[in-house]
Amino acid sequence: MKERFILVDLEGKGRIYFENLLENDFISTHKGNIKIDDIENTDWGGIVYTHKDYPYRIVEVDINDFIMYGLKRETQIIYPKDSGFIILNLGLKNGDTVFECGCGSGALTLIMANAVAPDGKVICYEKRERFINLAKKNLQFNNLINFVEIKEKDLETDEIDEEQSFFDAAFIDTREPWKIIENVKNVLKSGKKLGILVPTFNQIVEVLKELKRNKFFDISIKEILVRDFKTIPDRIRPEDRMVAHTGFLIFSRKSV
Amino acid sequence: MKERFILVDLEGKGRIYFENLLENDFISTHKGNIKIDDIENTDWGGIVYTHKDYPYRIVEVDINDFIMYGLKRETQIIYPKDSGFIILNLGLKNGDTVFECGCGSGALTLIMANAVAPDGKVICYEKRERFINLAKKNLQFNNLINFVEIKEKDLETDEIDEEQSFFDAAFIDTREPWKIIENVKNVLKSGKKLGILVPTFNQIVEVLKELKRNKFFDISIKEILVRDFKTIPDRIRPEDRMVAHTGFLIFSRKSV
Amino acid sequence: MKERFILVDLEGKGRIYFENLLENDFISTHKGNIKIDDIENTDWGGIVYTHKDYPYRIVEVDINDFIMYGLKRETQIIYPKDSGFIILNLGLKNGDTVFECGCGSGALTLIMANAVAPDGKVICYEKRERFINLAKKNLQFNNLINFVEIKEKDLETDEIDEEQSFFDAAFIDTREPWKIIENVKNVLKSGKKLGILVPTFNQIVEVLKELKRNKFFDISIKEILVRDFKTIPDRIRPEDRMVAHTGFLIFSRKSV
Amino acid sequence: MKERFILVDLEGKGRIYFENLLENDFISTHKGNIKIDDIENTDWGGIVYTHKDYPYRIVEVDINDFIMYGLKRETQIIYPKDSGFIILNLGLKNGDTVFECGCGSGALTLIMANAVAPDGKVICYEKRERFINLAKKNLQFNNLINFVEIKEKDLETDEIDEEQSFFDAAFIDTREPWKIIENVKNVLKSGKKLGILVPTFNQIVEVLKELKRNKFFDISIKEILVRDFKTIPDRIRPEDRMVAHTGFLIFSRKSV
Repeated sequence: MKERFILVDLEGKGRIYFENLLENDFISTHKGNIKIDDIENTDWGGIVYTHKDYPYRIVEVDINDFIMYGLKRETQIIYPKDSGFIILNLGLKNGDTVFECGCGSGALTLIMANAVAPDGKVICYEKRERFINLAKKNLQFNNLINFVEIKEKDLETDEIDEEQSFFDAAFIDTREPWKIIENVKNVLKSGKKLGILVPTFNQIVEVLKELKRNKFFDISIKEILVRDFKTIPDRIRPEDRMVAHTGFLIFSRKSV
Repeated sequence: MKERFILVDLEGKGRIYFENLLENDFISTHKGNIKIDDIENTDWGGIVYTHKDYPYRIVEVDINDFIMYGLKRETQIIYPKDSGFIILNLGLKNGDTVFECGCGSGALTLIMANAVAPDGKVICYEKRERFINLAKKNLQFNNLINFVEIKEKDLETDEIDEEQSFFDAAFIDTREPWKIIENVKNVLKSGKKLGILVPTFNQIVEVLKELKRNKFFDISIKEILVRDFKTIPDRIRPEDRMVAHTGFLIFSRKSV
Repeated sequence: MKERFILVDLEGKGRIYFENLLENDFISTHKGNIKIDDIENTDWGGIVYTHKDYPYRIVEVDINDFIMYGLKRETQIIYPKDSGFIILNLGLKNGDTVFECGCGSGALTLIMANAVAPDGKVICYEKRERFINLAKKNLQFNNLINFVEIKEKDLETDEIDEEQSFFDAAFIDTREPWKIIENVKNVLKSGKKLGILVPTFNQIVEVLKELKRNKFFDISIKEILVRDFKTIPDRIRPEDRMVAHTGFLIFSRKSV
Repeated sequence: MKERFILVDLEGKGRIYFENLLENDFISTHKGNIKIDDIENTDWGGIVYTHKDYPYRIVEVDINDFIMYGLKRETQIIYPKDSGFIILNLGLKNGDTVFECGCGSGALTLIMANAVAPDGKVICYEKRERFINLAKKNLQFNNLINFVEIKEKDLETDEIDEEQSFFDAAFIDTREPWKIIENVKNVLKSGKKLGILVPTFNQIVEVLKELKRNKFFDISIKEILVRDFKTIPDRIRPEDRMVAHTGFLIFSRKSV
């Protein structure tokens, strides 16, 4: 039973994500309908045809595919170009306990949970109930819900439950992260890393001031750019347009 | 006992990696000597002073630090900016079995082993014995050797031992990857991803031709650029110079 | 009499180009109509209002504005980010005689004519009559037609009229520039520069081979990227998307 | 008589600038000495040999070469990647009168003078005498001194001599440009452009506030990146490192 899959246009024009089609007979695409039976009877990587004979290949959904094509979102999400860099830079590994402030739709939560599973845990504080529900749904769907605990709290006003020096790493993705830094500092182990994402330079200034006031050290600011290229062997060239900005990543370590 | 640590210059001018200092009394820096006893008696994130009173903070080594500052290398390595993107794009998770062709100094091997541990495995083919020894040493040092099997083989001439459709993902980092693609295709599960790193456009052309000949689909070519910024709050600006190129990443999926 | 002008949306949402409105009473915008009389009675830099009271500022058209907003085009044009770099790199100055092969809509021709005027000249070979007419119209409109001579010729088959070592600089923007390089070499002064624009890497390879075969030296390949930033003082950040590619610029010098 | 020339290493390893060698018999390079007589007897684009038989090609110096290799500098200069974009964006043409505040070593002054010559003029205000002398020397050397007038004044305290609406364009390259904007506004024609270069984001914020306070409109912020590529036809790839930052360019128009 294929619960989730992606259809890939053979001309490379796109990918369509589907899930939970148990009760349907057909799915619809721009190029016509495909029978669910045909999908069930085709191996991963194989071709299915619409009733107009247009071919698609079926692909199993991995976590990256899910974030790019399947994630239910109500916010700007943290994309794989950034989240891949984040988990590397935070040095995450199986068994780590990670703090996340602001899970939004859960895109980074998924990636961090995947990085610390099966023996670690992400503990996430999020003040908006509807995002908590959304993130939980996205986590369940990827069998990662057991590695995440989400708490409905506003860290600008509420305390963090965990004891001092509890976390191996921390990440903040809120509008005014500087208001939370001191709070987070207390529950982070000494020498361990705090990552912060902000989209504007004005926010960088505020974050830097607060990091320095709280004696964080080894501060770095990074921006990740991904450039795509066309894949025709006789005409290799960069794509005409690109995503030029998502956010700036600020990393630093807690001093003793 | 601190077996491995990094000293971070408080002015942000650099990081120095040390390991295996059991028999020493002192370590040397540009700014003077530091007693091993002082290092033992200082908590992670704390400050130690050289005999010239120059301060450094001590940091515990995570896998990213190790690759950037501690890895023994005899080759161009795959840097975290690329390897973070690779493990995301390959959709690696605990339990996956990954094929790697060409481990070099083991920088990507480390990152992939970390991503599939504790229940998965990286199986690596490398033809040069001295790189095998180097990679093993780097893996042991990070307690990841149990999640990696390295085989001394040249895939341009030798067969792959594993049975058909054995691997959940594959990565090739060799000079002429197009010579290996057909070989690798056989052991990769249908629909799963192959990643390839090449530094030149001429190589991209050859890889694309061979991928298309072997019916790989959903092909993408990516280049990851990281831009660093200065961290003085009153003078935020990009660094004057940056790494402008490491390699191009080509991803594709095996068709059934 | 304002023959040409640009209306700038005060919210920075765009610029609209108008010309030759002698016989009209009104012009139309998305936000309503504006009386030509109002435009005539408003100074450059001043505000005119639509009949719906939406304000626009009127701007005099310079050569850069014309290329970005007013140029009639039937081709991909060479944009100011590239043409500014080209005239600098070719070292153009008043009095120079420049060869251009392939004028397209005339965007680069305009910029080069502007750079060598009033005492220099651009001599342009173009095989397609309709582009010649288009380029001439665009040049006339900017009072630059006297500094340009356009000849209807196909340099893949026709000879260049000018004598040997006639030109101070040359630029080729055709699909297969390597077919023209030897022809152009003969009319370029020794030591002087040839610039070539190509969009793909495959073309770079062919151009490099032909340049080396013809003993061009001091070869460089450049790509110009322009990043735009949002202009709200409290939220300075790069724009979300950018033009990621127009073409690669190849410069070299003719040997004696 | 070759007063100025560049020697280009045939392996592309660099360019050496020479000038005013009238009284010498030899010039020295890393690869040995070259007789001045040999240089005089070799055509532009030709090869001269050192006494160790190492070959160089001789190139005539254009304005771009001069700025890159010959300019006497005591400051960070504005590089051709930026100055080419600046003269395009300011829409400079023969006959324009341009205001420049802060000429530094004169790199942009040269380019702007070249753009408005022979009928236009750059009027430059610079408060440091030693930069005035340096810029004048660099201008004389390029026969552009007649198109530039440099005045020793500090615009943070002194008035601008010219009458209102005197200039067709203006450019400010000082540490605190916001202190000068109001002063410059008065002498710029309505609708015409002001360009400003600043290296940091903090400066962008101050400039934007002052531009808006002075009702400048059509504001844009641009950053120009140039990427170089290796020129070996079989191994086309970006250079490993690049200049990642010089400055941000802010353009705007004066309202009536």
